[in-house]
Amino acid sequence: MSTYVLVHGGWHDGSCWDTVAGLLRREGHEVHTPTIAGNGKNADRRVNHADCTASIVDYIRERDITDAVLLGHSYGGTIIGKVAEAVPERLRRLVFFNAFVLLDGQSLLDETPQNVQFVEKGAAASGDDTYLPAFENVRDVFFNTVSREEALRYYANWSPQPIQPFRDKLDMKTFYSLDIPKSYLTATEDIRVPMPDLSWHPRFSNRLGRFRFVAMPGDHEAMYTNPGLLAVKIVEAGRD
Amino acid sequence: MSTYVLVHGGWHDGSCWDTVAGLLRREGHEVHTPTIAGNGKNADRRVNHADCTASIVDYIRERDITDAVLLGHSYGGTIIGKVAEAVPERLRRLVFFNAFVLLDGQSLLDETPQNVQFVEKGAAASGDDTYLPAFENVRDVFFNTVSREEALRYYANWSPQPIQPFRDKLDMKTFYSLDIPKSYLTATEDIRVPMPDLSWHPRFSNRLGRFRFVAMPGDHEAMYTNPGLLAVKIVEAGRD
Amino acid sequence: MSTYVLVHGGWHDGSCWDTVAGLLRREGHEVHTPTIAGNGKNADRRVNHADCTASIVDYIRERDITDAVLLGHSYGGTIIGKVAEAVPERLRRLVFFNAFVLLDGQSLLDETPQNVQFVEKGAAASGDDTYLPAFENVRDVFFNTVSREEALRYYANWSPQPIQPFRDKLDMKTFYSLDIPKSYLTATEDIRVPMPDLSWHPRFSNRLGRFRFVAMPGDHEAMYTNPGLLAVKIVEAGRD
Repeated sequence: MSTYVLVHGGWHDGSCWDTVAGLLRREGHEVHTPTIAGNGKNADRRVNHADCTASIVDYIRERDITDAVLLGHSYGGTIIGKVAEAVPERLRRLVFFNAFVLLDGQSLLDETPQNVQFVEKGAAASGDDTYLPAFENVRDVFFNTVSREEALRYYANWSPQPIQPFRDKLDMKTFYSLDIPKSYLTATEDIRVPMPDLSWHPRFSNRLGRFRFVAMPGDHEAMYTNPGLLAVKIVEAGRD
Repeated sequence: MSTYVLVHGGWHDGSCWDTVAGLLRREGHEVHTPTIAGNGKNADRRVNHADCTASIVDYIRERDITDAVLLGHSYGGTIIGKVAEAVPERLRRLVFFNAFVLLDGQSLLDETPQNVQFVEKGAAASGDDTYLPAFENVRDVFFNTVSREEALRYYANWSPQPIQPFRDKLDMKTFYSLDIPKSYLTATEDIRVPMPDLSWHPRFSNRLGRFRFVAMPGDHEAMYTNPGLLAVKIVEAGRD
Repeated sequence: MSTYVLVHGGWHDGSCWDTVAGLLRREGHEVHTPTIAGNGKNADRRVNHADCTASIVDYIRERDITDAVLLGHSYGGTIIGKVAEAVPERLRRLVFFNAFVLLDGQSLLDETPQNVQFVEKGAAASGDDTYLPAFENVRDVFFNTVSREEALRYYANWSPQPIQPFRDKLDMKTFYSLDIPKSYLTATEDIRVPMPDLSWHPRFSNRLGRFRFVAMPGDHEAMYTNPGLLAVKIVEAGRD
């Protein structure tokens, strides 16, 4: 049996994994679903990327989690890369699930130039430097495999995302020197935003050097839209 | 329940949708399968792209079709783009199914330079400016998921394609300003012709700006080779 | 019923097809699984690419095999290209299964520059100009769809690969002039090595000109990791 730490993406919190975590626990695995600092319904949004990383590092240290498969989804990929630098000895494998793998010195927004204007405009108007896209702007690109009713139900779990962690440029040099085994799990119908020529894979996966590739049909919100298959694929991506 | 208008591709006519339309109707949907001017077994082939567009616009207006999901397959993508400019108020969503999405000022042949010589040679030899490729030239690239016997049976439904609509350069400026929701449905084993690096998706899909992406296994002739799955995916692509 | 000649890839020998061949024979097909010169557990490793090609050509001629579907996997793609030049009249179709299709004048190593250093270092250290990667270096990239235990069991069948056939630059001009029908069969979770932007398809497939494309989920070692599905897809790729 394995120990999983599942790190959510932007606009989400740890509860997005409830169904997936339940399925994994039923198979006997230990599953942790921390919420990143600044995320969740009633969080203090004044955080930067270092605060966010620290919140997951603290979570792992406080519970003395060892031998963990650390998975990051989307924005969560930028978090697990930095967490891996802090506690490499506690990690058995990193799994990036349609996640950003940042180049040294870059920010998440550097990777999505087509979104910067919307995000910054929303952040400026929010009063607390957060952004929550309207349902109509995400229904087709995040929830493309399910009905409108289902999409609305899942979207109701989203909350405003602090944007400073998306702006922070990260030093990734240590990350790229770590020899922790890595997997890239991709849901193949996830285009999230109309990507340029390359999608999550191989655009971000190829930055990992040697990695295990696991694919599944599905969209960016597969933890909601297909949790059963996602749980199976997390095991395939995370096993030794 | 929804109203679908399914617009066929080159060499086809509205009858190519018979099985798909039957399946959709059994679920309660209203389904229209017009034949583009110049196509079909006994059509007058002397048409240009404007005539072809007009034939579908007239079909929609004469039947007073409203709130329609308008789907175009292959060449049909060039038609529905122009139909959308003419009757945007009658359309709920556009679905491009392995379809061309032309850039402003371009023709279908501009997108398939590797085919121009064959097509034009065939058109010149035809006597009526049409082209019908020999079975051996399409068996592997259009019907790749089925047996030779099945491919022959489906090919028997093809008829000579007027080529002027493939040559006409289209003004797409209004199309690109429309805010009708759009989906791109792709059959992933469809390479049609050995494409350059990018296939239907993301080559044409990315021109749509924001769109819903739906994928299925299958080839370019999925209305014949896998109508059951195609009907399911048309609903997923066309729903709100 | 058809006649198949299945040509293995690097580090493998003809026995890698045992399960697939058994399934095809049960359907009534005739199946040959020759071992390329220099491969197999106790082979003489002092071979170049011409020797390897000759060993398969001889196998086909000695058994008077005609009307064959000739399939090559991975490195085997470089072999079947040259075999086709020698005995085109005996071949009904070529099937490339996640296989190299070399450009005229190039070697297999020319296509994998990222591996040259490892391979050459291993070959220099081997004493007999062969290379066998350690299990840890291939577990994730060749056997990504199965458990570690399964991967270990399949890897036990590998044997050291002579490297000179990977270095030999091949004259492919005759190959590119042959009009034998061709298929490209791809297992879509096979990235083998972190590829640049393009994977087996369309990187190598598009060099074939007109070809039939057949896709399946699976990894580079599908003859071990999913022989049942592979047998089905070999029939789809190989039929007329």
